[in-house]
Formats: sequence, structure tokens, C-alpha cells
Amino acid sequence: MRFFATPPIDGSLARYIAYDADFCYKLPDHVTYEEGALLEPLSVAVHTCRRSGVQMGQRVLVQGAGPIGTLCMMTARTLGAAEVVITDLSQDRLNLAKELGAEHAICVRGKSPAEVREAVIEALGTEPDVALECTGAQSSIESAILTTRSGGVVVLVGLGAARIELPVVEAAVREVDLRGVFRYVNCYPTALNLVASRKIDLTGLTRAHYSLEDTLDAFKRAQKADVIKVFINCDNSR
Amino acid sequence: MRFFATPPIDGSLARYIAYDADFCYKLPDHVTYEEGALLEPLSVAVHTCRRSGVQMGQRVLVQGAGPIGTLCMMTARTLGAAEVVITDLSQDRLNLAKELGAEHAICVRGKSPAEVREAVIEALGTEPDVALECTGAQSSIESAILTTRSGGVVVLVGLGAARIELPVVEAAVREVDLRGVFRYVNCYPTALNLVASRKIDLTGLTRAHYSLEDTLDAFKRAQKADVIKVFINCDNSR
Amino acid sequence: MRFFATPPIDGSLARYIAYDADFCYKLPDHVTYEEGALLEPLSVAVHTCRRSGVQMGQRVLVQGAGPIGTLCMMTARTLGAAEVVITDLSQDRLNLAKELGAEHAICVRGKSPAEVREAVIEALGTEPDVALECTGAQSSIESAILTTRSGGVVVLVGLGAARIELPVVEAAVREVDLRGVFRYVNCYPTALNLVASRKIDLTGLTRAHYSLEDTLDAFKRAQKADVIKVFINCDNSR
Amino acid sequence: MRFFATPPIDGSLARYIAYDADFCYKLPDHVTYEEGALLEPLSVAVHTCRRSGVQMGQRVLVQGAGPIGTLCMMTARTLGAAEVVITDLSQDRLNLAKELGAEHAICVRGKSPAEVREAVIEALGTEPDVALECTGAQSSIESAILTTRSGGVVVLVGLGAARIELPVVEAAVREVDLRGVFRYVNCYPTALNLVASRKIDLTGLTRAHYSLEDTLDAFKRAQKADVIKVFINCDNSR
Repeated sequence: MRFFATPPIDGSLARYIAYDADFCYKLPDHVTYEEGALLEPLSVAVHTCRRSGVQMGQRVLVQGAGPIGTLCMMTARTLGAAEVVITDLSQDRLNLAKELGAEHAICVRGKSPAEVREAVIEALGTEPDVALECTGAQSSIESAILTTRSGGVVVLVGLGAARIELPVVEAAVREVDLRGVFRYVNCYPTALNLVASRKIDLTGLTRAHYSLEDTLDAFKRAQKADVIKVFINCDNSR
Repeated sequence: MRFFATPPIDGSLARYIAYDADFCYKLPDHVTYEEGALLEPLSVAVHTCRRSGVQMGQRVLVQGAGPIGTLCMMTARTLGAAEVVITDLSQDRLNLAKELGAEHAICVRGKSPAEVREAVIEALGTEPDVALECTGAQSSIESAILTTRSGGVVVLVGLGAARIELPVVEAAVREVDLRGVFRYVNCYPTALNLVASRKIDLTGLTRAHYSLEDTLDAFKRAQKADVIKVFINCDNSR
Repeated sequence: MRFFATPPIDGSLARYIAYDADFCYKLPDHVTYEEGALLEPLSVAVHTCRRSGVQMGQRVLVQGAGPIGTLCMMTARTLGAAEVVITDLSQDRLNLAKELGAEHAICVRGKSPAEVREAVIEALGTEPDVALECTGAQSSIESAILTTRSGGVVVLVGLGAARIELPVVEAAVREVDLRGVFRYVNCYPTALNLVASRKIDLTGLTRAHYSLEDTLDAFKRAQKADVIKVFINCDNSR
Repeated sequence: MRFFATPPIDGSLARYIAYDADFCYKLPDHVTYEEGALLEPLSVAVHTCRRSGVQMGQRVLVQGAGPIGTLCMMTARTLGAAEVVITDLSQDRLNLAKELGAEHAICVRGKSPAEVREAVIEALGTEPDVALECTGAQSSIESAILTTRSGGVVVLVGLGAARIELPVVEAAVREVDLRGVFRYVNCYPTALNLVASRKIDLTGLTRAHYSLEDTLDAFKRAQKADVIKVFINCDNSR
């Protein structure tokens, strides 16, 4: 599989690119290129929420407040999750997540899985129905398993070490399913519909803008992690 | 089956009622009794949306802008439907539905099923994924079948004549499923979660208030149909 | 859509045909060409059973004992249906269906929908979970709706008059879903796996054999309806 | 939760037991008490197959040829699995499993997970769609993850060590879901239907019979593991 956004495939940092129309979605006039650029991670969030089976009125735990975790939180809210609690090690990221809609944000720095469980249940008043695990850390996957209600689902979005020790019996006897995600499938149209219909508002994520000429600065900014995403505008006219 | 809200069972218009706790849901302090009273029709809307299988990003046709149709429209929006178009014979009801969130409202007075289809597709730019049929009229069920995309779902919420002539082959070969609803099942907790978490705002539906002593006036008002629901406050203290 | 088996597309009655390999499935050596020829209607049966959601241990009503009805009955048995009752107007067809595995076969000639319901329930001891309606007749669709248990599914396989009068309220309030089928989708591999693994045995259906030179006789035989399917062997060598 | 078959609850080894009728299923006359006794583990197998989502025409890997594994194999065949491969450390158990219907039986003694994968794929000609893991051993769960096709399901039936190291990334990026089972839910009626309708034949599993007076011998026999299940007949009259 060749994927334009992933090494060793390059060439996307250019003013114009010729691309097979069958693989393109037309953006309506009122959707910006920056929103269009976010359809890729938003599609991951759509796929994640679908894989989790989360339904309106349910409670959701999102672990990790980076771009994917934040978009998972926003997507879960869009489909009617009653409450979303998001966790991270960085209070800055959590503050942004709260601004963007998370009902609860918990800094888990120094907390054991059992302590994370306690804090999440205190925030929600009950166990979450699903956990969207976006960090890949062993302790975080363990927190997700311990915290999710019996019969619920943990989606493994973030990836860490290839082999991880997990409390498998705890997950199995409580029928907490573990489901991975590989990018997305048939999610772009849904992501685009959500953005075009203003059901999901991505403007809070588009705060760092660079021109194509300043690409190097853009990559340096991305390393600073003070913004969710950094944008390079390939088009001078728009 | 005995059902407290339906003849011949009476006795609910009283200051206090003793009821088995197993069949009660406790309202949080910030949820009003009037919102509580709407959990019954909202549960019908939750069940209807679940039966339809509607997913975030999809387009929805709601036929009928009475209490159930309006709540179906609001519930579909809550779970992330990209656009909802609602139809009715009354422009007043449609105006209220637009105030309450419907993206499109179409008066279908005098329109044939084929003309309804045309108007709905013009509004959405495409066929709806599901139709929630809340009128029970033969012509309206036919409109729903004609309008819904192949592979979509028509939910029959409204009930009219016992026997109805329908374009069954059109539904069958395009795999447009016809699914009924009988009230709800396991929907109260979800409806309550949606209201308690402010994902769905029912205050726009609670505009006619009567005290228990003025019950007769309340029933007269209900016949005027200038409001979605009429409320009788059984509790002087709240 | 062009479909090789349906007018106005012709040319399939030939010794050799050049066809795009992407649209072909290779038959294992132990699967005969006649079994291969039955994969088309068997795929309809697989799609029908999938659409019905029938599960192992359930009871199934199949209406119509022609090729599609018979294959639906056999497929439902293959996936573990506890009992299948099949109905038809012809006792000959019903006798063959019983030979091929149907637990119960009911001749419905002269029976009203209510009488069909009574006879089916007497045979099964209870209402069927799903009905696979392969006749398209109005009275038969009505029988299916009346007979299927609340919460069950009627699949409309057979097609008759474009517009049909149905007891829609009966279906709706008992949540008996009406689902059509349009041929099949992604069913050939399953159908082939079932035949290749001997989970389904089609040899009882392959009783009338003609050579390519005798095609005209074969078509005449097909009109006699004393066999389920008539086969024309395009290949002298096998 | 109290469970009659599990310590510390005792009292089931008696001629007569008074039990709440609401929790009982009536056996038809042609179903023996020994078959009735097997409905408990058969319900586990039914629940396991349901949790796996296995469909007719699919390929199934069952790991472990004890009572649960054997019943899972038989149940998967009953619902139309095209081929089932079963694995165990004991050739005796595998021989019995083949007698009872398994298409392939592989002794995995001394094999690494990668070698198990190779052997299973050689037997099936392809990867299995689902794996029903009935041993609980770490290496066996790892084999299941490695062997199951992308997008498939591993059901964790057997339980071993509380914490286990697993190739989580391998499972996640290939979207191989891990699902546990806790006994069963709503499976007894299905299990009974399968037995009563002879879709599943349990007589091959009922080979060691003891009277109530010889209970001690029965327990000693159970430790010898030369039979799948040991039966104690509490009823002299039948």
C-alpha cells in the first residue's frame, strides 16, 4: 500500500499535484483547505468511533489529548455522547480539549491505572461505555481495560511497544472487547458531511498557519507541540 | 400490557402517585418535571432513530412535524445527522421545527409522492439515507419509499389505516427496508442522559403551562394544536 | 447494469466464452459445472438468509418451493435453523422439498392468510422467527406478516404486482420488518465455500441434463416444471 | 451471583431438587437427561460462536479439544462454517474431535506460534476468519492473533494467567478483535433447539455413565481425561 502522507512517499509539499479524480473528494466552497486538510485525522476519529460502537447518550473515555484524541472527543460529542472525559499528561493539552468541548479533563501524570479508574468514575459518576485509547502506552491501555464498564469496548488507536503485558482475564471475563483501528475505511464522506454541515467545527484546531515558502519553520513549530496541528498553505490565492 | 398514559388506565392526574420504584427513573435536580414529562415521547424518538440505524453524517427525512416528528428531528440532529428535512401540511408547525433546528422544512400540502421526492432531493442535494415516517398517511409512506436511497430505511412511526396499498416492488428491489416501532425498549436511560447532559434541549417544546386545577383548560388548549405539548403541573412546589 | 443471464444480453449458450478474469471464481476440481451453475441462485439464497438475520436454532418459514425457495430452505438449514417449514401450491414441489431436507411442507392451496398462519404454527409449535417470501403473491406476503413472530423479519424475495395492499399496521406495531433483496452482494465466495466444503449438497437439484445441441428441448423441459432446474452442458469433455 | 454448578454452592448431586420454574427449561421427551446436562457447556459454545460473529461459509480455528473446544467446533459446524481446524497438545483428544466432525486436527505440541500459524494455513489453504481460543495459554492466544485474518475475531474462552504479554500492535493494526466470554446470555433456548431438532448430535460426547451411588468413581474417571464428560445419573427411572 502506498500512502501519500507517509514516508517513503513524498511530493505533497507542492503548489499543484496531479491526482486521480477517483480518489478525490470535492470540497464545497464554504469548506476551507485547512478544514479539508483535517479530514484525514478526522476520518481516523470517525473510524474509531464507529469501531467503538458508541451510541448517543453514552459516556466516553478518551485517553490522550493530541490531534487524534481531540478529534475523537469532538466526534464522540457530535454523535451525541452524553459526556466525554479526556485524559493526558499535559495540562495545556487538556485545557485546549476543554475549550473544544470535553466535559471533563483529567491530568493522569503520576496516576496508576487504578487511580485513573477512580478519577474517571468520579468525573462521570459511573464507568464509561467505551474507551478510545490514543496513547499506546501500556499503563494507559491497562487503565482503559480497568475503567470501561462490563460489556464495553476499548479501541486501540495509539500504538506503542509491539508486545505489551495486559490484564487479559480482567478484560475477558467482563467482556470488555479490545478493537484496533487501521486508519479508516469509507470515512471520508462522513467526515466531510460533518464538517460541511457544521456539525463539527474544526476552526479551534487551525491556529498555526505557514506559507509553502516557510515549510521549514512549520515543521519546527510542529515539534513545539503548543498547537494541535500546523498548516502549510500551498495555495496563495485562497 | 397496562400503560399508565393510555385508556382505560387512569389516575395519573393527581398530586401524588405511589409507583413501584423499579419502574422509576430519578431526575437529576437540574432536570425539570416538564422535561421529565417529555422523556416518554423522546424515548419514542430515541427508539425510532435506533431502529432506523441512522449514523452521524447521514441525511434524514422526517415526515410530520407534530410532537413525535419534531422530537425525531431533534434526536437525529443530536446523533450527528448532517442534515434533516422535515415535512408537514402545516406551515406553522414547520416554522417551529425550523426554529428547533431542522435544516429544511417543506410544506407538502397538495404534493404527490413524486413531487415530495423532488422537493426533498432538491433540499438535500441527494436522497436521504433514512426516512422517519410520523404521519401514517398512505401517500406519506409512499413518499418515504420513493425518496429514500437504495439500501436505506423507512421507519413507520405514525399509524393510519390498517391496510394500505404500497409500491412494494419499488421498496424491495431497491432494498429500502420498512421497519415499525412499538413505543420503545431500553430508551428511557438514553433519553434522560441526553436531556441531563444538555445534548438535547427540550425547553423550546414546553410553552403551555397549566396547574392541576386548570386541567380542563389544558385539554382544550391541546386541541388547538398551536403548541407541541401542553403541560399540567401536578406539583405546586416546583 | 448489464447482466449476462438476463435479456437483452445473450451469448451465454456457447461452447466457449471469453470473460474478464476479475469477475470469475475458479471452481475446485471436485465441484461440477452443474453445481457451479447453481451458485447464481444459491447466492440469492445466501443473500436472502443474510438479509433476514436468521440465526442458528431459529425457526424459518419459506413460502414458495421453486428453485429460490428450495435453495433458501437448504441454506437456512445449513446455517443451523432448528426447523424450516416450506409452503407451496404444488404438492409435487413440496414432496421434493421434503426430500431435500425441509422439516415441514404445507400445501396452501385454498388457504387464507389466517389459515396459513394457523397451519404453520401447528407445524412448528410456535411462530417462525423469519419468513422468506419467494412467491410475490399478495396473499402470501400477508401470510408472512401475520405468521412471523413480533420482532421478526419478512424478506421479500419473490416479486409480483408493483403495488400491493398490505396490513401495514400489523407489521409496524409488532415490529415485523419488511426487507427486500436485489440479487446478492459478496455472496459468491460464501456460496462456493458451502458447496466446496459439502455443507450444502446441490446434487438433488441437478436431475435434468441436456447437451448444448439439445438446448431447445431443455427450454421445453423447463416449462414443464417437473424439475427444479434444467441443465445444458456446454462442455462435451466434462 | 450464585451459580449452582460452582463452589461454594453445592447440593446438585441429589435425586430431587426443588428449583424455581422460571429458571428451568422443559426438555422434550426425546431429549435425554445426559443431553440436557450438556446444555450448560453447549450454551458456552453458542455464546462463543455468537460473540465471534462467525458466519456460514467461513473458516474457524478452535484451540483446545477439551469439552468447550469440542462443543465450539461442533457448534461452528452446525451454523455452516465451511471448515474447522482444531488444535490441542493431546493426539487422543484430536482423534475424538475428528470423529465428531472437525475437518482438520493439528497437534501443536512443541510448535511456536509462528509454526502453528503455518500449520493452520496449510490445512485451510488460507487464514481462518475467527479463532475460538479455549486453552488460556499465552502462546495459544498469541497463535490465535498471528493466525486470524485481518479484520477477524479472536474469542478468549479459556482463561489462564491474570496478566499476559501479547503482540497487541499486531492485533490492532490488522484489526483482529479480542473478545472475551462470560459464560452465556440467552443461549439456553438456542442450545436446546439445536439439540431437540437434531442439528447438533451430542451422543458422541456421552460415553461415561455412573449412577448417583457411584459418584466418587465418576469424579475419579473425570480426572483420567479419557472422555470429554462424565455423567452421573441422578434418576434411576430413566
